[in-house]
Amino acid sequence: MTTTVSAYAAPAANAPLERTTVPRRAVGAHDVLIEIKYAGICHSDIHQARDGWGEGIFPMVPGHEIAGIVTEVGSGVTKHVVGDRVGVGCFVDSCRTCEYCERGLEQYCAGGGTSTYNALDQHGEPTYGGYSTHIVVDENYALRIPEGISLDVAAPLLCAGITLYSPLAHWQAGPGKKVAIVGLGGLGHMGVKIAHALGAEVTVLSQSLKKQEDARRLGADHYYATSDPATFETLAGTFDLVISTVSAPLDFDAYLSLVKTDGALVNVGAPEEPVKVSLFSLIGGRKTLAGSMIGGIAETQEMLDFCAAHGLGSEIEVIPADRINEAYERVIASDVRYRFVIDASTI
Amino acid sequence: MTTTVSAYAAPAANAPLERTTVPRRAVGAHDVLIEIKYAGICHSDIHQARDGWGEGIFPMVPGHEIAGIVTEVGSGVTKHVVGDRVGVGCFVDSCRTCEYCERGLEQYCAGGGTSTYNALDQHGEPTYGGYSTHIVVDENYALRIPEGISLDVAAPLLCAGITLYSPLAHWQAGPGKKVAIVGLGGLGHMGVKIAHALGAEVTVLSQSLKKQEDARRLGADHYYATSDPATFETLAGTFDLVISTVSAPLDFDAYLSLVKTDGALVNVGAPEEPVKVSLFSLIGGRKTLAGSMIGGIAETQEMLDFCAAHGLGSEIEVIPADRINEAYERVIASDVRYRFVIDASTI
Repeated sequence: MTTTVSAYAAPAANAPLERTTVPRRAVGAHDVLIEIKYAGICHSDIHQARDGWGEGIFPMVPGHEIAGIVTEVGSGVTKHVVGDRVGVGCFVDSCRTCEYCERGLEQYCAGGGTSTYNALDQHGEPTYGGYSTHIVVDENYALRIPEGISLDVAAPLLCAGITLYSPLAHWQAGPGKKVAIVGLGGLGHMGVKIAHALGAEVTVLSQSLKKQEDARRLGADHYYATSDPATFETLAGTFDLVISTVSAPLDFDAYLSLVKTDGALVNVGAPEEPVKVSLFSLIGGRKTLAGSMIGGIAETQEMLDFCAAHGLGSEIEVIPADRINEAYERVIASDVRYRFVIDASTI
Repeated sequence: MTTTVSAYAAPAANAPLERTTVPRRAVGAHDVLIEIKYAGICHSDIHQARDGWGEGIFPMVPGHEIAGIVTEVGSGVTKHVVGDRVGVGCFVDSCRTCEYCERGLEQYCAGGGTSTYNALDQHGEPTYGGYSTHIVVDENYALRIPEGISLDVAAPLLCAGITLYSPLAHWQAGPGKKVAIVGLGGLGHMGVKIAHALGAEVTVLSQSLKKQEDARRLGADHYYATSDPATFETLAGTFDLVISTVSAPLDFDAYLSLVKTDGALVNVGAPEEPVKVSLFSLIGGRKTLAGSMIGGIAETQEMLDFCAAHGLGSEIEVIPADRINEAYERVIASDVRYRFVIDASTI
């Protein structure tokens, strides 16, 4: 039987979010009901709530950085029990049969998968995200949050954490590797923590020097301001891996000049407009310009286990739900260190 | 003692090539003197002879697809003996000490290496290329051409062959892999032959259907015209590896849509101007946009041995030297199947 739960939703594109109720499906045989404790605010929540990508489904309940407790399980559930600490990330279903799902790359599901919100599920019903008190999710798309991490700092790992962990792991950041993280925000600060924990030598490339102390504390070995042209001379040909978390249009040729032969510049943030790049920036050193998007279910679990083992969580500012709209403005102004997390008990 | 040898040179930017003489250095302890038998005409010869990249050194003797016979060796030479069939490619020296030289990636030498022509050697003397009767080269930068390949069809392997072999090997073209070659010219036709010999399923993407029969004969399994928009729908998400050999500005987002998740679009040709690409074309499938440039010495030898073992050479039209200027015009008009090779006995 469908239940009705409290949530914060954008009633229409660009309208402020407000308290409302949304339906949650009955707990099916393979579903778990999760009492949400915390939900992170991702920049893409704002894009979608303001319909920046178009075709938004309203009312929209954003939130794909969800941490909570299992309060009910379906009759066929084997992966979770009542009381488990669990998380839900950016998607709540995928086709499970395409070659990518079979390889644990559900984020690239050929069938498109089902986003945690602003999508239609396999029954054609809209999905509603984590700015809510409860969510019903197929057990296979709920992750186990190890005891070592508090639920509040764990929530942002479900998007920001895995978004950085996946490319760092895929492009083999580790001992002996020099990694640069471009942009020190919600994504970038997790990149610094994870790359450092993986054993890489980590450099932060940020517009100004103002976050330098933070970066060191988070694990960065070096810090350079990209507003200083000397940075690009000093660091030419330095990095095995550069991960850009920014959505501003960078001078990609300049950033590629920082990459070593056989190295990669991987974008997890991106401007909405096409970017310009000279292919000679790639040809001259067999360099890679690539992109990466969150991670698969198994890899997300691996990331949570890794973060727990290394004591890593997000740096957060917990807010009550009635400050979501204010938080959105502060995210846009880059005025958060480094992630807002909504206390779901206030929804 | 410096000797004087016959050559064809561009006396100045955009001037037609004409017969002249150039000096060749005395055969040093580690040098070999090569009597050139054949020299291929690469599109980049034309660019440089016409100073398309600027800073050309004139008079310029182009040619970096050189096949010939060793006629003299220095006292310390151990790799070659008089009578050996040898080739010289795009570079004749490198620093030998940087991490790339040490890894056999001399083509990406951090010191820049020394191009076979249009460069200054370590003594500050200009280098002159293969449109000549003889060349003196350090033994380490001369390749062994196996008996199985005629020198005329071997010459283009030294640039066109290795330019395709290297990315095909690096990105692991082989059985079970779907490879597309964009453009069926001097580079592309070698890509088809080598990818087929490596065991990959090969598709040619060419502007029109007019080279379809050739492509099949060269080893292509499939052929599509890129002028037909249906091609991009039919082949969406098909290829593990797409290698673009063209220097026209492509719709890179369209070509990236043909690449599978975790696949790569590798450019060995490139337009001189920056290209536009949406980073979402990369992010949505962890795709790679990359470039690749010729190959290292060991890999070039590996390529020659591979081609000999598989009976692969370039498809060529042999011309006398007095038709070089005419050949240049025909290369620009794509009127060659698939490589002009100069008979050096006519120089």
